[in-house]
Amino acid sequence: MEFSAQQIADLLNGTVEGDPDVRVNAFAKIEEGKPGALSFLANPKYEHYMYTTEAGVVLVNQDFTPSAPVKPTLIRVANAYAALAVLLDMADQSKKKSAGIDSGAFIHASVSMGDDCYVGNFAYIAEHAKIGKNCKVYPHAYIGEHVTIGDGCILYPHATVYEGCVIGNNCILHAGSVVGSDGFGFAPEEGGNYKKIPQLGNVTLEDDVEIGANTTIDRAVMGSTIIRKGVKLDNLVQIAHNVEVGECTVMAAQTGISGSVKIGSHCRFGGQAGLAGHLRIGDGVSVGAQSGIISNVESGRSILGAPAIDSKAFMRSSVIFSRLPDMYRTIGQLQREIEQLKEKINK
Amino acid sequence: MEFSAQQIADLLNGTVEGDPDVRVNAFAKIEEGKPGALSFLANPKYEHYMYTTEAGVVLVNQDFTPSAPVKPTLIRVANAYAALAVLLDMADQSKKKSAGIDSGAFIHASVSMGDDCYVGNFAYIAEHAKIGKNCKVYPHAYIGEHVTIGDGCILYPHATVYEGCVIGNNCILHAGSVVGSDGFGFAPEEGGNYKKIPQLGNVTLEDDVEIGANTTIDRAVMGSTIIRKGVKLDNLVQIAHNVEVGECTVMAAQTGISGSVKIGSHCRFGGQAGLAGHLRIGDGVSVGAQSGIISNVESGRSILGAPAIDSKAFMRSSVIFSRLPDMYRTIGQLQREIEQLKEKINK
Amino acid sequence: MEFSAQQIADLLNGTVEGDPDVRVNAFAKIEEGKPGALSFLANPKYEHYMYTTEAGVVLVNQDFTPSAPVKPTLIRVANAYAALAVLLDMADQSKKKSAGIDSGAFIHASVSMGDDCYVGNFAYIAEHAKIGKNCKVYPHAYIGEHVTIGDGCILYPHATVYEGCVIGNNCILHAGSVVGSDGFGFAPEEGGNYKKIPQLGNVTLEDDVEIGANTTIDRAVMGSTIIRKGVKLDNLVQIAHNVEVGECTVMAAQTGISGSVKIGSHCRFGGQAGLAGHLRIGDGVSVGAQSGIISNVESGRSILGAPAIDSKAFMRSSVIFSRLPDMYRTIGQLQREIEQLKEKINK
Repeated sequence: MEFSAQQIADLLNGTVEGDPDVRVNAFAKIEEGKPGALSFLANPKYEHYMYTTEAGVVLVNQDFTPSAPVKPTLIRVANAYAALAVLLDMADQSKKKSAGIDSGAFIHASVSMGDDCYVGNFAYIAEHAKIGKNCKVYPHAYIGEHVTIGDGCILYPHATVYEGCVIGNNCILHAGSVVGSDGFGFAPEEGGNYKKIPQLGNVTLEDDVEIGANTTIDRAVMGSTIIRKGVKLDNLVQIAHNVEVGECTVMAAQTGISGSVKIGSHCRFGGQAGLAGHLRIGDGVSVGAQSGIISNVESGRSILGAPAIDSKAFMRSSVIFSRLPDMYRTIGQLQREIEQLKEKINK
Repeated sequence: MEFSAQQIADLLNGTVEGDPDVRVNAFAKIEEGKPGALSFLANPKYEHYMYTTEAGVVLVNQDFTPSAPVKPTLIRVANAYAALAVLLDMADQSKKKSAGIDSGAFIHASVSMGDDCYVGNFAYIAEHAKIGKNCKVYPHAYIGEHVTIGDGCILYPHATVYEGCVIGNNCILHAGSVVGSDGFGFAPEEGGNYKKIPQLGNVTLEDDVEIGANTTIDRAVMGSTIIRKGVKLDNLVQIAHNVEVGECTVMAAQTGISGSVKIGSHCRFGGQAGLAGHLRIGDGVSVGAQSGIISNVESGRSILGAPAIDSKAFMRSSVIFSRLPDMYRTIGQLQREIEQLKEKINK
Repeated sequence: MEFSAQQIADLLNGTVEGDPDVRVNAFAKIEEGKPGALSFLANPKYEHYMYTTEAGVVLVNQDFTPSAPVKPTLIRVANAYAALAVLLDMADQSKKKSAGIDSGAFIHASVSMGDDCYVGNFAYIAEHAKIGKNCKVYPHAYIGEHVTIGDGCILYPHATVYEGCVIGNNCILHAGSVVGSDGFGFAPEEGGNYKKIPQLGNVTLEDDVEIGANTTIDRAVMGSTIIRKGVKLDNLVQIAHNVEVGECTVMAAQTGISGSVKIGSHCRFGGQAGLAGHLRIGDGVSVGAQSGIISNVESGRSILGAPAIDSKAFMRSSVIFSRLPDMYRTIGQLQREIEQLKEKINK
C-alpha cells in the first residue's frame, strides 16, 4: 500500500512541511531511508542522519528545528515515536492473517476451542485442552493434555506447552519456546546417583505475556511457576521451577532465574543475568546485563556485576580493575620506601 | 484421588498426630498450603510456616518439636523429604499415560521397536532406527537414521536426535533438546573464509541421562561425544563436540562446555558456567554459577569466578572489589604522605 | 568402505611409510585410535599419542620425525590436517543422502521449488515461499510465507524461518534454530505496561551462513537484521533485531548480541560473550569468552572481561584480583606504619 504525506499527516493529526504529495510504501530507519520510505526522528542522537537520509517522509516531534537544509517531507506530530507505533500497528493489522483449521492439524475430539481460531497443519492439540477464541496455533505447535489457553493467543511453530499448564489472554509464545518442562529436581542418593523428583505442578502465564524464541519455563514441583500479567521475556531465557515473576517485569535474552526465586513487578533485567535460588527481588529493580545475584534485593535498586552490587559502585570499581597491576606495583614500592624511611629514622 | 491422613501414614510407616480422618487430594509447598493439601517440612528454615499453613496434613521428621500450636494433622516419618518423594512418585505413576502408536506418526518400515511404546502423531522415526521397549516418543519428536534408543526412554515434543546417535536406557529428552547437531568445526582458508569440517562422529548417552529443554549436544568430529550414566543436564546447556561428561555429573541451566573437554564423575556445575576447550576436569569438582574455567581442575576442588579460582578466595576478593575506589585513593594518599615524610627526614 | 594405506596415499599424493596393505574403514582421534582406524597428527602437542595409538594408519606432515618406534603405517603429506579434511569430505559425500519429496510434507500450491530437493514428512512450506535447487528440508522444518531460500541449503528438523525472511545459497540451519522471530521491542506506557511494537522487518542471511542448533535471530523492527556471507554461529546464540554481522565473523555458543549492533568482518567471539545495544565493532576483532562489551571497539583489537578491556590487560588484572585481600591488608598496615613514622618524626 502507498500513502501520500498528506494522508499520513491527516491520520496522525500532524502538519506537513514540504511536498504533501510525496508517496511512501515502506518503513525504514532514518539512516537506511530510501525513496518511497517513511522514517522517524525521535532520538536527537540521530539528528545528523536527517540531513543525508533518502527517505521520502520523516516523522518529527512538533518542536524539531532543523540546523541544516532538509530534503524529505516532514510530518510534525506531538510524539514522533508514538505516531510511528500507530502506523506500524496499522501496517501490521493490514497484513493477511492465517485463518481456519487446516486439515492436517491434530485436534483431539475432547478439545474445546473458541471461534475464529487458526490451527495449522501438524499442530497438535491433546485431550481435554481448552483454547479460547481468536487464537493462532501455527504448524508444529504442541499443546498438551488439559492445557488451558485464553483468547487471542499466538503459538508460533515448535512452541511446546506441556500438560496441565494455564495460559491467559493475549499471550504470545515464539518459536521453540517451552512452557512446562520438568523442573531440575533430583535427590542425591547414597552412591552418588540422583533420583528424579516428579514435577507435579504446572506453569501459569497470566494475560499479555510474551515469551521469546527458545525460552524455557519449567513447571513447579508442586503448585505453579507463575508469570504475571504483562511480563515480557526475550529469547533463550530460563525460568526454573516455582519461580514467580511479577507484573510487567521484562527480561532480556539469555537471562536465567533459579528455582523458587520470587521477583517483584516492573523489574528490568539486562541480558545474560543470573539469579541464585530462593531469592526475593523487590519491585522496580534494575539488574544490569551479565549480573550474578546471590542475595535478596530491595525494591527500586539498580545493581550490576557478579556478585552484583550497586550499579554505580560496580562501574567505579571496574575502572580501577584495569589499574590493579599498577596498584600492586605501587604498594610494593611503598613498602620498600617505608622500610627505607624506617631505617633512616632508626639510624 | 483423595486419601485420609491415616491411609497415608500407613503407607509411609508413619504416625499420625491430630485428626486421622482429615482428607487431602493435592500437594502444596507449606507456604502455599490450602485445605485439602498435603505439605512437608524438611528444612528447619521453613518451620515458621508450620504455624500459619492452611494445609490439611504435613509430613514432618520423627523428631520435630513444634514451638507453637499446630493446626494441620502431622504425620511423623523417619525422613519427611524422602517420604514426600515416595508419594510424588505414586501420584506420578497413577497419572494416565499416553500409549499406543498414533496413526499420524511416521515410522519407517525398517525401524525395529520394542513392546509397549507410545509414538504420537507427527513423530518421525527414520530408516533403520532401533527403539527399545516402554519408550514414549511424543508428537513432533525426530529420531534420525540408524539411531539406537534403549528401553524406557521418553522423547518430549520437538526433541531431535540426529542420525547415528546412541541413547541408553531410561533417558529423558525434554522438549526442543538436540542430540547430535554438527560440532562447530571450521578450517580457516586463505582470504578469511571458513571451510566446514564434516562432523562424522556421533553422540552417545549412557543410561539414566536427563537432558533439559532446548539443551544442545553436538556430535563428535570423529568418535563420540559421550554423556555417561546418570548425568543430568538442565535447560539450554551447550555441550560441544568430543566432550565427555562423567557419571552422575549435573549441570544447571545455560552452562556451556567447549570442544574436547573431559569432565569427571559427580561434578556439579552452577548455571551459566563456561569452560574453554580441551580442559580436563577431575571428579567431584564443584563449579560455581557463571564461572569461566580456562585451565585444568583437580578432583574435589570448589571453584568460582571468571577466570575461576578457589571459591572462598573468589568470595573474599569480591568483597574487596567494591572497595577498590577507596583503596586507590588511599594508595595515592599514602604516596603523598611518604613524600612528605621523605622531605621532612631529608631536611 | 575400506581402503588400504596405499590407496589413501595415492589419493592424497602422499608417501607410505610402513605396510602399504593395512586397511582402514573409520576415522579416529589419535588418542582413541583402534585397529582399522585412520588417525592424523597435526598438532605437535599430541605427538606422544603416536607411540601408543592402536590406529592402523596415521596421516602426518612431510617433515614429521618420530622420536621413538612407531607402530602404525604413516602417510606423509604436505599438510596432515588439510589432507584429513579432504578424506572427511569424501566420506561425508559418500553417505546416502535423503532425497525426494515425502508424501507427508506440506507444500503450499503457490510454492516454487528448484530441482533435486528433499522435503521430509511433516515439513511445512507456506504460501509463496521460494526454494532453490538441491535443498534439504528435514521433517518438522517450518518455512513461513514469502520466505526465499537459495540453492543448496539444509534446514534440519525443527528449524523455523518466519515469514518474509531471505536466505542465500549453501546455508545450513541446525535443529531448533529460529530465524525471524519478533525483536524484543516494547514501548513503556503510563501505568507501567509495555505496548508491543510490531516488528515489520525481516532477517537476511547471505550465502554460506551456518546457524547452530537452537540459535535465535530476531527480525528487524523495520529493514533487515543482516547476517553476511560466510558467518558461522554456534548453538544457542542470540542475535537481536536490526543487528548486522559482517562477513566471515564467527561466534561460539551462547553469545548474545543486543539490538542494532553493527559488527565488522572476520571477527571472532568466544562463548557466552554479550554486547550492549547500538555498538559498532570493527573488523577482525577478537572477543574473549564471557566478555561483556559496553562501548565501541576498533578494528583489530583483542578484548576480554566484563566490562571488556584489552585481553592482556584483563589477564594481568585477573592475576592481581586473587591477591586483593592481601593488598587490602597491606594497605592497612602501610597506613599504620606511616602513622608511626609520623609520630616518631614529629616527636
